[in-house]
Amino acid sequence: MPTIESFEKKLARVQDEAGTLLCVGSDPDPNRMPPSVRRGKHVADAVREFCITIIEATAPWACAFKVNFGFFEALGDEGWRVLSDVAAAIPESKISIADAKRGDIGNTGRFYAQAVFEKLPFDACTVTPYMGRSSVEPFLAYAGKAAFVLARTSNPDSDEFQLSPSGRDHLYRHVAMSALDWARESPGSLGLVVGATDIEAMRRLRDDCPATPFLIPGVGAQGGRLEDVLQAGLTAEGAVIISASRSILYSSGGEDFREAAGDAARTLTHTIAAIQSDS
Amino acid sequence: MPTIESFEKKLARVQDEAGTLLCVGSDPDPNRMPPSVRRGKHVADAVREFCITIIEATAPWACAFKVNFGFFEALGDEGWRVLSDVAAAIPESKISIADAKRGDIGNTGRFYAQAVFEKLPFDACTVTPYMGRSSVEPFLAYAGKAAFVLARTSNPDSDEFQLSPSGRDHLYRHVAMSALDWARESPGSLGLVVGATDIEAMRRLRDDCPATPFLIPGVGAQGGRLEDVLQAGLTAEGAVIISASRSILYSSGGEDFREAAGDAARTLTHTIAAIQSDS
Repeated sequence: MPTIESFEKKLARVQDEAGTLLCVGSDPDPNRMPPSVRRGKHVADAVREFCITIIEATAPWACAFKVNFGFFEALGDEGWRVLSDVAAAIPESKISIADAKRGDIGNTGRFYAQAVFEKLPFDACTVTPYMGRSSVEPFLAYAGKAAFVLARTSNPDSDEFQLSPSGRDHLYRHVAMSALDWARESPGSLGLVVGATDIEAMRRLRDDCPATPFLIPGVGAQGGRLEDVLQAGLTAEGAVIISASRSILYSSGGEDFREAAGDAARTLTHTIAAIQSDS
Repeated sequence: MPTIESFEKKLARVQDEAGTLLCVGSDPDPNRMPPSVRRGKHVADAVREFCITIIEATAPWACAFKVNFGFFEALGDEGWRVLSDVAAAIPESKISIADAKRGDIGNTGRFYAQAVFEKLPFDACTVTPYMGRSSVEPFLAYAGKAAFVLARTSNPDSDEFQLSPSGRDHLYRHVAMSALDWARESPGSLGLVVGATDIEAMRRLRDDCPATPFLIPGVGAQGGRLEDVLQAGLTAEGAVIISASRSILYSSGGEDFREAAGDAARTLTHTIAAIQSDS
């Protein structure tokens, strides 16, 4: 039986080939999509076209694509089919991430994992840790796939629970250390979501989890500085995936949205590269 | 503009009319469904038929139905349509609960809420609190609907985070008190998920949240005793919804599964009533 490449190894290979750390997120809000895409079309078809166009336009400047399930589920029945078409449009040479924030126990957890890893072709899924180990393990159990466990999220009100003392530390660190422990049996299958908005937390998590990939939202619009993120999160051993969504998707509301998205992704990738070569 | 009945009021009315506290959960595992349902059918069609049959068979003995999204998502594209058909089969005279454990911030949260409350006809949705206030509020914002926030779940490994000290108390209580606060502007729209497996936690949460409906999994197979649950959770002001899934769905693996499910629901409803009249 051929060995399946672990998620962590695939990520390293893909980032090396792509020469970028950028992940482009699909958050297709019909009200923000350019009128030229919506005109004369059923909203689900417009969403499909918009997302696939963005993926094609930004693929040269991205190592990963992240699909935000909420936006597709809001389309009703058709949403799941559109999601499936969008997932299929992500090139196999890239990392595909289901941003679904799933989390349920035992049997249900296994079905959620089956949905994103078998029925859909994603490489990884974001997972919420509140219910504990059995809600994360079904995602860790797939060879070649990964769970990105929410540790420190980028929304301002995430402090309320995540910065609460929990055991000997803040909850977000408790979660990260537990997740490391859960993933012991399935090396290369764990990632953490670590927002760009709390650099101190990112530094601590990098100390705790030197080799765990970080998926990093919150750069730009939410206030996280790229320089700080790369300095705190990126090491020889520890990969980072810099996620950007709205700043790319909606960089133009006009008919040139495709070119504008490509330009925004290229600029971001070049900025990342410039910071890396400076440091 | 006519006033919309709050979720809490609808629940009180429905439980009164139905004369039962039982919620029947749809967790359709194709491998556990009776062979007579599966035979000669596409799996998605078999799941649809099984769930709708169970709803019809148990409706006289249930005040609510809970649909577990993971099992439908695992069917792929078609799953969302089957889920929609099953949701439509829940009588309007009952409470319908999306057991989706959703939770994401801002924009995404609003789209998740739109999916379950506008595209699907659910009265309530289970919501995971890890990201904080902004991940729960989109569900509280719908008049007549409710968010059941995970507080103390029934899985054994839920202790790891939920029983961690957080602020002045355990995390599960911190979550419940915060949720109460978030729901201040939208009275009657908050519920809590409180497992039957930690009666001490249920008692504390009932003290903290005297009027908040509890959705209670974990009776029976998971070890929670009905007597204890009713004693700790049910008060004149505070409603409880007793959730049962597998013990009803799979009470017979044979062709009599419909009758067996109805019998199991009736028995459970009668047991609840007997305990209530004894106390």
